[in-house]
Amino acid sequence: MTSNTAINYRERAYALLKADADKIVKLIQVQMDNLTMPQCPLYEEVLDTQMFGLSREIDFAIRLGLVDEKDGKAILDQLERELSNLHEATVKKRG
Amino acid sequence: MTSNTAINYRERAYALLKADADKIVKLIQVQMDNLTMPQCPLYEEVLDTQMFGLSREIDFAIRLGLVDEKDGKAILDQLERELSNLHEATVKKRG
Repeated sequence: MTSNTAINYRERAYALLKADADKIVKLIQVQMDNLTMPQCPLYEEVLDTQMFGLSREIDFAIRLGLVDEKDGKAILDQLERELSNLHEATVKKRG
Repeated sequence: MTSNTAINYRERAYALLKADADKIVKLIQVQMDNLTMPQCPLYEEVLDTQMFGLSREIDFAIRLGLVDEKDGKAILDQLERELSNLHEATVKKRG
């Protein structure tokens, strides 16, 4: 069950999920740079929707057996840390 | 690229997506049976969220190369037809 093709799918799944997580960080960065308030309900809504979409993708990859549960959780955890840092930096800059 | 493992992943991806689409139909059926109004905003919101989640899963499977674009579209189209029939049947029953 670890043929070349299986490894390719696993690697591709992981790379796609990481790329999608990075896209969320970039999107939030743009929002932070352009909205006056990070507490804006629109910001929360966009973030919630994006996080939900990514978590569905990760869950699907786990159920397929392409991504381990702990790796999927690690992608979400790292994204949350990055967003939290971004949020903090923005609040400080405006301080 | 069509080893047994690749075929297994493709079949599993398709089966998971179909199962998730069926789950949405069942969820909406329960909502129809228990809510007084199919026009209820909660109903719309649950449906939108579920459709968005499924479409993200399908899109992910297509990008992975596990599901063909036309098959992914067919799953969503069929789900939409089933939901539309369900909606119509409920409205008639209450007529």
